[in-house]
Amino acid sequence: MNQKLHTRNWRDKLHEIIYEADTPLGKFFDVILLILILLSIIFVMMESVKGLHEKTYQFLYYSEWIITIFFTFEYIARVISIKKPAKYIFSFYGIIDFVSTIPLYLSFFMVGSSALLTVRALRLLRIFRILKISRYIGESNKLAKAIKDSRAKILVFLFAVVVVCIIAGTLMYIIEGEESGFKSIPISVYWCIVTLTTVGYGDIAPVTPIGQLLAALIMIMGYGIIAVPTGIVSAEYAAGQKSAIVNVNSQACSNCNARKHQDGAKFCHNCGHTLFND
Amino acid sequence: MNQKLHTRNWRDKLHEIIYEADTPLGKFFDVILLILILLSIIFVMMESVKGLHEKTYQFLYYSEWIITIFFTFEYIARVISIKKPAKYIFSFYGIIDFVSTIPLYLSFFMVGSSALLTVRALRLLRIFRILKISRYIGESNKLAKAIKDSRAKILVFLFAVVVVCIIAGTLMYIIEGEESGFKSIPISVYWCIVTLTTVGYGDIAPVTPIGQLLAALIMIMGYGIIAVPTGIVSAEYAAGQKSAIVNVNSQACSNCNARKHQDGAKFCHNCGHTLFND
Amino acid sequence: MNQKLHTRNWRDKLHEIIYEADTPLGKFFDVILLILILLSIIFVMMESVKGLHEKTYQFLYYSEWIITIFFTFEYIARVISIKKPAKYIFSFYGIIDFVSTIPLYLSFFMVGSSALLTVRALRLLRIFRILKISRYIGESNKLAKAIKDSRAKILVFLFAVVVVCIIAGTLMYIIEGEESGFKSIPISVYWCIVTLTTVGYGDIAPVTPIGQLLAALIMIMGYGIIAVPTGIVSAEYAAGQKSAIVNVNSQACSNCNARKHQDGAKFCHNCGHTLFND
Amino acid sequence: MNQKLHTRNWRDKLHEIIYEADTPLGKFFDVILLILILLSIIFVMMESVKGLHEKTYQFLYYSEWIITIFFTFEYIARVISIKKPAKYIFSFYGIIDFVSTIPLYLSFFMVGSSALLTVRALRLLRIFRILKISRYIGESNKLAKAIKDSRAKILVFLFAVVVVCIIAGTLMYIIEGEESGFKSIPISVYWCIVTLTTVGYGDIAPVTPIGQLLAALIMIMGYGIIAVPTGIVSAEYAAGQKSAIVNVNSQACSNCNARKHQDGAKFCHNCGHTLFND
Repeated sequence: MNQKLHTRNWRDKLHEIIYEADTPLGKFFDVILLILILLSIIFVMMESVKGLHEKTYQFLYYSEWIITIFFTFEYIARVISIKKPAKYIFSFYGIIDFVSTIPLYLSFFMVGSSALLTVRALRLLRIFRILKISRYIGESNKLAKAIKDSRAKILVFLFAVVVVCIIAGTLMYIIEGEESGFKSIPISVYWCIVTLTTVGYGDIAPVTPIGQLLAALIMIMGYGIIAVPTGIVSAEYAAGQKSAIVNVNSQACSNCNARKHQDGAKFCHNCGHTLFND
Repeated sequence: MNQKLHTRNWRDKLHEIIYEADTPLGKFFDVILLILILLSIIFVMMESVKGLHEKTYQFLYYSEWIITIFFTFEYIARVISIKKPAKYIFSFYGIIDFVSTIPLYLSFFMVGSSALLTVRALRLLRIFRILKISRYIGESNKLAKAIKDSRAKILVFLFAVVVVCIIAGTLMYIIEGEESGFKSIPISVYWCIVTLTTVGYGDIAPVTPIGQLLAALIMIMGYGIIAVPTGIVSAEYAAGQKSAIVNVNSQACSNCNARKHQDGAKFCHNCGHTLFND
Repeated sequence: MNQKLHTRNWRDKLHEIIYEADTPLGKFFDVILLILILLSIIFVMMESVKGLHEKTYQFLYYSEWIITIFFTFEYIARVISIKKPAKYIFSFYGIIDFVSTIPLYLSFFMVGSSALLTVRALRLLRIFRILKISRYIGESNKLAKAIKDSRAKILVFLFAVVVVCIIAGTLMYIIEGEESGFKSIPISVYWCIVTLTTVGYGDIAPVTPIGQLLAALIMIMGYGIIAVPTGIVSAEYAAGQKSAIVNVNSQACSNCNARKHQDGAKFCHNCGHTLFND
Repeated sequence: MNQKLHTRNWRDKLHEIIYEADTPLGKFFDVILLILILLSIIFVMMESVKGLHEKTYQFLYYSEWIITIFFTFEYIARVISIKKPAKYIFSFYGIIDFVSTIPLYLSFFMVGSSALLTVRALRLLRIFRILKISRYIGESNKLAKAIKDSRAKILVFLFAVVVVCIIAGTLMYIIEGEESGFKSIPISVYWCIVTLTTVGYGDIAPVTPIGQLLAALIMIMGYGIIAVPTGIVSAEYAAGQKSAIVNVNSQACSNCNARKHQDGAKFCHNCGHTLFND
């Protein structure tokens, strides 16, 4: 039994370092992880650059192996330090961790550059892990809340924008015709989205006077209605500022891995397991 | 008389399914309608794509016939289930329903691809029917209200923007001249709208130093005044948030087809006819 | 004396029609004026279009003469109906009225198309007269107030934007060099304004990796700081909504031509002359 | 000792003129400085223009010498009039003043146009001195405060935007491939930033249907989330409006050069030295 307690303590210790950011060692681990993820993303991006690739090939190749081995050990540590490994393995971040680690191993078994390219790009999914770490920053919580609260309204608004773009795009297809680059209704709708959102590439542009008049109306409208989502978020955000925000910490339950416990909580709000506050 | 009552009940039942979304059958009908409209819009858009058209011609042709026949039956059902058919037929949505259904029938009598193109595009008007269905979403009501309330101010603002564009466009026409692409005052005004709304196609761009200086001033101004409509909508929306919003449902009066009755209303607010709440 | 009184009454009547919009005749006069100004602006814009010009030359030529003669009579009526003509003649709108009326007369004495082009464009100054008429719309007063109140802050903000553009433009000039289209510091600053305001013509675009990185930073910054003027106007506008707005009418003093008298005022707030409320 | 007092008074006088803007002489000195800085910036920008350079070379050359000599004397005056020169010399503005003054002297010792170009551009750093002078404008203090308060949130937001751009850019790289101009992941991410911020150069644009669909989604998203920073600044600014703002003046302590003393303060808030209010 003593032996068992010892084992549990050892696994709890590992759990605390990997899953939580409240202890010095946990913070240090998160910082190391953050740096390795950022380096890894920069290396994957560099790999795709043609000229650069030849010159720094050796460096990128060995760096990628070192990082992949680190992430492999980290993945194994995450699985063994938790009581119910299945919960982590099949969670969103568990899948991200797995999928972003295996591409290098897969590259041994795969032939054909096209499929390999996609597989190798999977390593960029590690960027989601940054979001997991930065989740603990108070500001991003407030921001995420403001976006979440106004999500329904902004989606309805964006849906209305798409409907307007389909109608206006079809009109432009009839007015301008295929000689001006408005080759089909989908292309015209694409042009209309490019114009209404004020992006304006210029690869397709109206050339007939009536087409230019309609385009001007679409632009003026886009300039006028951009105010709508802003008004919504402003109001939601101002309302959110007033509501009390409960302080949660990054502590994770060693039994069910649930997070966001209130400061001073003694039991997991999800499974009732004791939380170790050391 | 019993026979008459039976007929009325049968027509009331149909009326409830087609015109209202409060009963399970009514909701089911609306969802089927929504899916068919969306499919129909995607098919019309696909039809305009050149390469795709040849390959999937057969599929699109038969699909369009099935959808058109469904909409034809639906139109007839709408006309016979209402007490005063003229009220529906000459309403905005009645005309939309009619005009978006007939193009396929008209295509038998018309020759000449150009006119036919426009007629076939009329089927896209079905998109307005989505707006009719989505009208019941609470969020879109609030959004529509916010836009409606600030409409007058935004129109005055956009009018001022157009006046500024006419003055600045004329100046650019004089400064840049026809060699730089500023071929006429209307074209210059069009360019000015493209610039002020920050779309910026780049098909016309100033080349003289003075023209570029004026263009820079227009951009800076456009960047500064985009705040004005936003401020208006924000204020209107924040004010709208505070005012009480009466809950209305989608029930339509079987006598006059008036809608937006308050929850629990027993008589039509328009004609005083009894509302059937079953 | 009776004769003199009669004359004053006749001139007062004319003054009321031309300068005020509270009587039916005054409103009718304003509407006629508005239509003629709009027609006139459309004609001037059409005149600059090459192909159209040849075809509709005769029509535009005679229309312009009719409109110019109307504006000439209107100008004379404005001068004789006011007690102190100098006050009107040297006011902003007096100069606009004069300068926008004479171009057609001047075209007899001038030779050389380039100077003539500028002179003829002066007719477009009539657009300012629309602003004078639309001044009476309540919404535009509120809008003008909101812009006026936040003018100082927006100017300081735009000044800061220009300073940022000069620094970033110089950096881009050094990084990209003249081969990429960044030919001089002013051109680079112009490009930077085009980018920061999210217009993005694409006539000049960075091609070196470091240039593209800096450009991305400028864009991200532009995307982030566009919020600043919006926040200012929103706050000013919300504050302005609360303050009481005094109702003013369009009545002009027949002595000093001062306007914006409060409803029910009996004497001019500027010179103390009696106001005729009939 | 009397001699020493006299010296101190003479240096205090100079200190007041150069470092403060509360006395007429101090204000006059600031205005002269502002004009010279602006002229200097215009001259540096003109120098880079090719055609202009040859024509006005002589004028620009002598002007630059006059301005540089003035700034040299000003720098020396700033150093000798302060009690602890090291504090000024190694402050941000001290370094700016030094670095923006020496380029002309350095140009004697340097050969090679490329390095010289960068050194000469250092003179543009004088623009930061405008910010130092304009710091005393109340509006810019409020603006700076609003930006400062919402800085953390906007940075978190912009970081999230960059993460989204890396993910979407990689997707576009896989979808569009190198033939469409998406040559590498960094280039694709750059394109994605150009699109999301609604700049839209058009030098790179998607050509495949799936690429255009994804691009449309990115634009719609960019159009929707631009509301987020605006909502943040609006809320911060509105909150800032309510908080009391203490009036500070431009007086600088002659001992430690600390600034922003409250109106009517008699001793430096930093070192306790007497402030001379004459």
